[in-house]
Amino acid sequence: MSRPRQQISIGMNILGHGGHSAAWRLGEAPPTAVFDAAYYQNIARISERGALDAIFLADGPALGGDVGHQPAGRLEPTVLLTAVALATTHIGVIATCSSSYNSPFNLARRLQSLDHISGGRAAWNVVTNAGDAAAQNFGLGGAPVHADRYARADEFVDVVKQLWDSWEDGAIIGDAAQGRFADPARVHSIDHQGAHFQVKGPLNVPRSPQGRPVIVQAGSSEGGKALGSRHADAIFTTQTTLDDGIAFYTEMKARARAWGRDPDHLKIMPGISTVIGSTEEEAIARCDALDAFQGEGGLLAQIAQRIGIAASELDPDGPLPFDRLGTVVDYERGSHGFWEAQVNLARRENLTVRQLSRRIRSGHRLVVGSAEQVADTMAEWFLAGAADGFNLMPDMFPSGAEIFVDEVVPLLRRRGLFREGYEGTTLRQHLGLPWPENRFAAPEAQVRAASRATA
Amino acid sequence: MSRPRQQISIGMNILGHGGHSAAWRLGEAPPTAVFDAAYYQNIARISERGALDAIFLADGPALGGDVGHQPAGRLEPTVLLTAVALATTHIGVIATCSSSYNSPFNLARRLQSLDHISGGRAAWNVVTNAGDAAAQNFGLGGAPVHADRYARADEFVDVVKQLWDSWEDGAIIGDAAQGRFADPARVHSIDHQGAHFQVKGPLNVPRSPQGRPVIVQAGSSEGGKALGSRHADAIFTTQTTLDDGIAFYTEMKARARAWGRDPDHLKIMPGISTVIGSTEEEAIARCDALDAFQGEGGLLAQIAQRIGIAASELDPDGPLPFDRLGTVVDYERGSHGFWEAQVNLARRENLTVRQLSRRIRSGHRLVVGSAEQVADTMAEWFLAGAADGFNLMPDMFPSGAEIFVDEVVPLLRRRGLFREGYEGTTLRQHLGLPWPENRFAAPEAQVRAASRATA
Repeated sequence: MSRPRQQISIGMNILGHGGHSAAWRLGEAPPTAVFDAAYYQNIARISERGALDAIFLADGPALGGDVGHQPAGRLEPTVLLTAVALATTHIGVIATCSSSYNSPFNLARRLQSLDHISGGRAAWNVVTNAGDAAAQNFGLGGAPVHADRYARADEFVDVVKQLWDSWEDGAIIGDAAQGRFADPARVHSIDHQGAHFQVKGPLNVPRSPQGRPVIVQAGSSEGGKALGSRHADAIFTTQTTLDDGIAFYTEMKARARAWGRDPDHLKIMPGISTVIGSTEEEAIARCDALDAFQGEGGLLAQIAQRIGIAASELDPDGPLPFDRLGTVVDYERGSHGFWEAQVNLARRENLTVRQLSRRIRSGHRLVVGSAEQVADTMAEWFLAGAADGFNLMPDMFPSGAEIFVDEVVPLLRRRGLFREGYEGTTLRQHLGLPWPENRFAAPEAQVRAASRATA
Repeated sequence: MSRPRQQISIGMNILGHGGHSAAWRLGEAPPTAVFDAAYYQNIARISERGALDAIFLADGPALGGDVGHQPAGRLEPTVLLTAVALATTHIGVIATCSSSYNSPFNLARRLQSLDHISGGRAAWNVVTNAGDAAAQNFGLGGAPVHADRYARADEFVDVVKQLWDSWEDGAIIGDAAQGRFADPARVHSIDHQGAHFQVKGPLNVPRSPQGRPVIVQAGSSEGGKALGSRHADAIFTTQTTLDDGIAFYTEMKARARAWGRDPDHLKIMPGISTVIGSTEEEAIARCDALDAFQGEGGLLAQIAQRIGIAASELDPDGPLPFDRLGTVVDYERGSHGFWEAQVNLARRENLTVRQLSRRIRSGHRLVVGSAEQVADTMAEWFLAGAADGFNLMPDMFPSGAEIFVDEVVPLLRRRGLFREGYEGTTLRQHLGLPWPENRFAAPEAQVRAASRATA
C-alpha cells in the first residue's frame, strides 16, 4: 500500500475565501461562505477530483482578525470536517485543534470519531496557539509562555496517542449469540499520571479504519520542531527559499532519525501560495486585481505585522531593518516560522520592503505564474529534497482550486510525480504511511514473534 | 410558526442497539453498529419519515458498562450528529454534552457550528455526569459533589448562552464591494467573570438559522430542576406513573413561571420505553424474547443497581426494602430520577421486586403492547397534563423505530395529536418555541420600541 517515493503529497488549505486576504472582495463566493458547510464541501469535491491527499483547515478558538473589514470567525473544524467527509469518499480531512485549550480525552475522542465516520481519513494538526485572545476565552489573562505551551503539547499528544491505542486491533469479538462484545483484556486503561494530565482511560471509541488519525504539526520554533519530529506523521512549514527548504527538510529527517523513527514516515510539506493564469501575464493580472483591493498600504502592513515593527517605521524602498529585528521579534506572540521565512527571503534576495511585500501574501512562498511554472517549482522543490509534498494555498476559492486541479495536476502526472487516482482509501495510505503499531499490543506480539522464532 | 397546543413532541432516543439492553443479542444490527454513522443515519431517516421532532443521543465521556458482555463506547455526539444532520433535512439532533468536563467556549462553538450545518436543528442536552469514571479521564480522583456540579452547570449554561448571543442578528453586513464584513459594534465581547469561568468572547461563530441551539436538560434532582426550569427549552424526565408525571409537569411549569418565563416555552418530555407488536400478545412475546437473553438474574440486577442494594439482598417475591432505601441511595453516584421513578412505581402499585423488574427495563416507563395501546397511553399522558411530548426508547433498532413510525404515528395523527408533516425547518419550530431574544440586542431594540411608542 505504500506509495512510491517519487509521488508528491498535496493538501488543500481552505483559508477562508482564499490565500489572498482580498479574495472575498472579488465576490466569487458570498461573504458568509465561511459559515456554510456547502462551500467547503464544494472545494473538497474539486480537490478529490484531482486525487489530492487532504483538505486542511487552520483554526484558533478566538475571533481573530478585523471583523469590520474582513470575514472573521469559522465553524469548529472537527464538526465542519465531518460534513466535508460525508460529501466525499477518499480525500483526507485535517483539523487544526489546540493542545493548550482542549482536554486530551475529549479531543482524542472527537478526532477518533471523525476517523471512524470518514472511513480512516482524519488528521489532527497540533497547534499550541500563541496570542492572548484565545487564552482569554479559557480563563487565562494571556497565553502561557512558549516553553510551557510546548511542554503541555508534548504530553497532550502523548496522552492522545495512548488513548487512541487503548483498544487493541481485534479487541472487539462481536459475538451476539454468546453475548461477548469485546475481550476486556485487550481494552486498556492508560493510567496516565503526568505533569499536566492525569487520564485513566480507556477511550470510549475503538481503533479506526486507519488505526488512528494522522498527526500533523506546523510549528517551526525549536519546541515545534522537537514536537513534530517526535510525534507527527507530516509537517507543514513556511519556507520561502529553496536553500532554506532543503535545510529544514534535512534537519527534520535527521531529527526523526534521532527519535528512532524511519524518516520516510515524517512527510515534510511546505506551504505554497498560488496565483495561476493561462500565462504568466494572466497570473500577474489576477494577482494585481487582488492586490488592488488591498492597496500598497495593506501589503506593507502585512509585512510590518509579521516582523513586529510598525509600518510607519519601514522605508518601502529600503531593506528590512535587520539590525532591529533580532530585538523586536516576540516569540510569545507571533509565529516564529512566518517571521523567519519572511526575513530569510528578504535577506537572501536582497529585497526592499516593497519588493518583499509583492513576493509574499499569506506568509508562505508565493508563486504567480502559469500552470507550467507552478508545476516546475513544485517538481524542483520535491526533486531537490526540500519537500515530500505541499500544503497548497490558492489565491481564491473555488477558482484557484479548480485551476490547480484542472491544469497543474495533469502536468505533475505527466512527469510521473503525482498519482493518477487514489490507490488506497485512507489518508495514511494516500500519504504512504504505515499502519500504526499499537503500544498495548506490542509486547504480546513480540512474545508471539519470539516464540515462533525459537519454535 | 408556533405549533398548536394539541400536538405531541417526540424525540427518538437512539440508545445503542435499543432501549432493551439485550437488543444487540438478536442481531438486527451488527454488534459494532454503535460505531457506524450509517446506523444512526438510517434510524434518523426512519424517524424523519414520521416527522418526529428530533434524534436524541445520550452520552458520557468514559467507557461505561461491561465491555466484555455488552456493546460499550460511543462516537462523540456533536461529530456523530453532524453526520446524522447531513443525511436528513428536517429532524432535530440533540447532543448530550457534559458541563463538568468541557469548556464553555469550545462547547458553545461546536454546538453553534452544528446548528449552522444542520440549518437550525441542533440542541444541547446539558448533563453534569455523576460517577467517577468520567472524572478520572479529566484529572480528578472522582466526580465533584452534586451541588458543585450543578453550580458549575448553571454558570456554564449562562456563559454558553452569552456566547451564542455575542453576534447580534444582522451583525453581518457582507458588503464585499465596500470591504465591510460586519458591524463591530454588534459583535460583543461577553467579558464574563464568574466563580468557575472567565471568558472574554465574542464567539467566533455568528447566530444560526434558529438563533441558537435548543437547550435540553434531564436531571430530576433539586439542582437539575432548578437548572432546567431556568435555562432549558425542553426537559427529559423519568416518570413511571401518571400521578407522578402530572406532579412533575405541574411543578416544572410553576418553576418556569417563577423565573419569569412563559411555561409554554418549557416542554416536558418524559421517557417512554416501547415494545410494540401487532397485538398485545405479539408485543409480550417480543419482550419475552429479549428478556430471555438477559435472564431473571439480569433483570433483578438492573433493579438492584438502580437502588444501590445488592441483588443478593433482595427477595424477588417480596416488596422493595423501603425502610433501607432512604439510607442507601447515594445522590453523588447515581441518577436521582431513575431511583425515584423506580421506587415510586413499586410503592404506588405495590409490586414485588420480580414484578417491578418486568415493569421497567431501561429505567423509564415501559409500555408493552399494540400500536393502539401505545398511542392510548401517550394520548392519556398528554391530555392529562403530564407531558408535552415524549423521549421515545424503542426496544430494538431499527425495527422498534419502524413499528412506531409506521403504526403509532398514524394513530396519533388520526386523533389530531401529531403533525401530518413538518411545518417548519428548525427544531425550535418543530417544538413550538419562539425565536430566542438576543440579550445584547435587547436594550437597543427596547429603546427603538420606546421611541416609536412616544413618537
